[in-house]
Amino acid sequence: MSGVAELLARRERLLGPGNPLFYDDPVHLVRGQGVWLFDSDGRRYLDCYNNVPCVGHCHPAVVKAISEQAGLLNTHTRYLHENILDYGERLLATFDAGLNRLALACTGSEANDLALRIARFNTGGDGFICTNATYHGNTTAVGQLSSIFEPFEGYAETIRRVSWPDSYRSPNGLSGAALADAYADEVRQAIDSFSARSIRLAGLLVCPIFANEGLPRVPPGYMEKAVAHVRAAGGLYIADEVQAGFGRVGKWWGHEDSGIIPDIVTLGKPMGGGHPISGIVARGELLDNFRRSQMYFNTYGGNPVSCAAAMAVLAVIEQEALVENAAAVGDYVLKGFEELQSKHEIIGDVRGRGLFFGIDLVTGREAKTPSPDAARRVVNALRHKGILMSRIGEHGNVLKLRPPLCFSKENADLLVAALDETLAQQGARATR
Amino acid sequence: MSGVAELLARRERLLGPGNPLFYDDPVHLVRGQGVWLFDSDGRRYLDCYNNVPCVGHCHPAVVKAISEQAGLLNTHTRYLHENILDYGERLLATFDAGLNRLALACTGSEANDLALRIARFNTGGDGFICTNATYHGNTTAVGQLSSIFEPFEGYAETIRRVSWPDSYRSPNGLSGAALADAYADEVRQAIDSFSARSIRLAGLLVCPIFANEGLPRVPPGYMEKAVAHVRAAGGLYIADEVQAGFGRVGKWWGHEDSGIIPDIVTLGKPMGGGHPISGIVARGELLDNFRRSQMYFNTYGGNPVSCAAAMAVLAVIEQEALVENAAAVGDYVLKGFEELQSKHEIIGDVRGRGLFFGIDLVTGREAKTPSPDAARRVVNALRHKGILMSRIGEHGNVLKLRPPLCFSKENADLLVAALDETLAQQGARATR
Repeated sequence: MSGVAELLARRERLLGPGNPLFYDDPVHLVRGQGVWLFDSDGRRYLDCYNNVPCVGHCHPAVVKAISEQAGLLNTHTRYLHENILDYGERLLATFDAGLNRLALACTGSEANDLALRIARFNTGGDGFICTNATYHGNTTAVGQLSSIFEPFEGYAETIRRVSWPDSYRSPNGLSGAALADAYADEVRQAIDSFSARSIRLAGLLVCPIFANEGLPRVPPGYMEKAVAHVRAAGGLYIADEVQAGFGRVGKWWGHEDSGIIPDIVTLGKPMGGGHPISGIVARGELLDNFRRSQMYFNTYGGNPVSCAAAMAVLAVIEQEALVENAAAVGDYVLKGFEELQSKHEIIGDVRGRGLFFGIDLVTGREAKTPSPDAARRVVNALRHKGILMSRIGEHGNVLKLRPPLCFSKENADLLVAALDETLAQQGARATR
Repeated sequence: MSGVAELLARRERLLGPGNPLFYDDPVHLVRGQGVWLFDSDGRRYLDCYNNVPCVGHCHPAVVKAISEQAGLLNTHTRYLHENILDYGERLLATFDAGLNRLALACTGSEANDLALRIARFNTGGDGFICTNATYHGNTTAVGQLSSIFEPFEGYAETIRRVSWPDSYRSPNGLSGAALADAYADEVRQAIDSFSARSIRLAGLLVCPIFANEGLPRVPPGYMEKAVAHVRAAGGLYIADEVQAGFGRVGKWWGHEDSGIIPDIVTLGKPMGGGHPISGIVARGELLDNFRRSQMYFNTYGGNPVSCAAAMAVLAVIEQEALVENAAAVGDYVLKGFEELQSKHEIIGDVRGRGLFFGIDLVTGREAKTPSPDAARRVVNALRHKGILMSRIGEHGNVLKLRPPLCFSKENADLLVAALDETLAQQGARATR
């Protein structure tokens, strides 16, 4: 039995069926460095997918911070320690001044679950609005707001799923302000349908760049209008920055583009560069009201090692100017993808925000018919060319690229060339 | 402003009010080693509280495992990696053969939330039974089963809280089999009350040693009878081993004493020696059924670094014979506490399971009136004598001691002498 076959058999035996695994021919990774990953055969892969190691795989400053603090002290926040405070001050400095309180946990799911509780507590409401093609985490409560994977429990009557703001396949050919109005109107209608059932609104939970939905070009004015409806009804705007945050979009936070300051921001994945840490940042009164009434303690949350890891990530992002790099290299990659679009009919649309890209594959540019099969084939073909990515979106047809923030123009050239070659092969296959 | 006062002011400013903090005069820790913790003044504390660093603070083998793997690779389980498999095989070997599947997450709350979902999925029920003085975690769903801290949401009608099996302050002077029957009968009544409302039972979630409740001597036969009622009604027995597990009780698992094999076991706190990792171990069919239907993925869960940390913890427990040490030193400490009980009227009851102890403080031995004030004073006085512990129980009057598993007889002598001195001072204060 080959190495991979043996690992698969052991996984099945220990973890059972249904554990998500990338690629038809899964990759067995053994080492990572910067933007590179290496498999057990010594083969090198350019990582164009992983946002968790945002400062690069195994960054020496992050490894050193974890190692040193793990060797010194690792306790919990019922004793005093500087790390959580040093980190908190540095993190909050990257936010609008109104977002001035922090709570730390370990996963994005925990952060979103806590945000839902804080919103319910402060508004007295139970109603939440999310989009119809998203994922926010895996707890019982957060699973209710995950519309990509329907929870077996079904959706409670306190949940409404509105259309995500798709400006590529827009309804009725709408565009501009009319499109923003149409989508925002769905939020208003959701609120009305809560009112009709005497359900009070607690909030709107969205990723500010709608990453899982396929990274759309959000119609200008949509967020303003949607959030205005929510706030008029007494609800809160919760921005899930688990994917969008920490410089990914060429700005510190995904919500900066719209200019609308959220009431609560949730953080996760890249926060500790791989070390499990997450958190929420909120308007002080929201978190304080909640904490005065409700005991919230997270054993591992905010421990000295987690905070040391997260602090090292912030420091590297600043020292290596990775926010700026995400913006500059992001633009460069996007131009490369746009050139590919001019060559390959299969590319219906190309979208980018910093170092986050969605390439919308279609069977025809006029009909814009999503081609999830092509996306699956491209992702698998590129894995064999040493390029790692995945796919997202309501239709599963959008190539998802989200490399470490230290991605360079040289890396970009390699990516674009490999994608070009693969799309040419796919195109040839399609026309055979 | 002193160092502590400044840290408190920064905490208030960044984290807001209501963050749990130990002691009237909080401790500012800077270093840990084995059973010892050191504050910023260089003062040494004997750690008699922390179970998370189960193999001792900053154990070199755990630090080395984390450092090396963090420097090599840290990804997620959608790529293949040996660590989760090597760990899974070693962990499952410590369980009954029927408990043969593993899922990894990051916190005890996540593990319990997942266990609830698995139980609901497999039973088709929604009803859960817990005790009336417990805590199982902080997600929205798990908060419903936390009876020490009432959730602001109130309790759903699908939750029943039964009396924990208290054999010290037993009702109507019952003891032995009659007491076990009386408590188990509450479980049956809870099931009946579900039936009366057409709520199907999903399961019973308890800590098998009832740690938060005050570590009672469980009446022999209670678990057998309670679980028999649950299973007869189609429900599952979920054992929350977040506190009881990994050798704490002088056996690998807290549920071993009753001989009743749970359907699902949840793991957390000591699992990674401080590194955030948690999990569930379950009968294969339960997890497999769930996974076949429901996407469950945890970004950080089971990553190579977390598994390396957890593997090092298992290895140290075995190499240093810490399960055996917990049993042997546990007996020794318990004898010391029993001698103190013979000297100090304030000690109503002494209970121990391996290296987990509850000392039940009372205002009078006849009335057994709980004395939470005395417990608070003793905990704070011992902090100033360089001994760290806390208190638990329905009445907050039970001294809670749960030191790292490498606790020695020499450590025990120090603890018992300091407690003796403190109780004498408290006794003198009480009679002044």
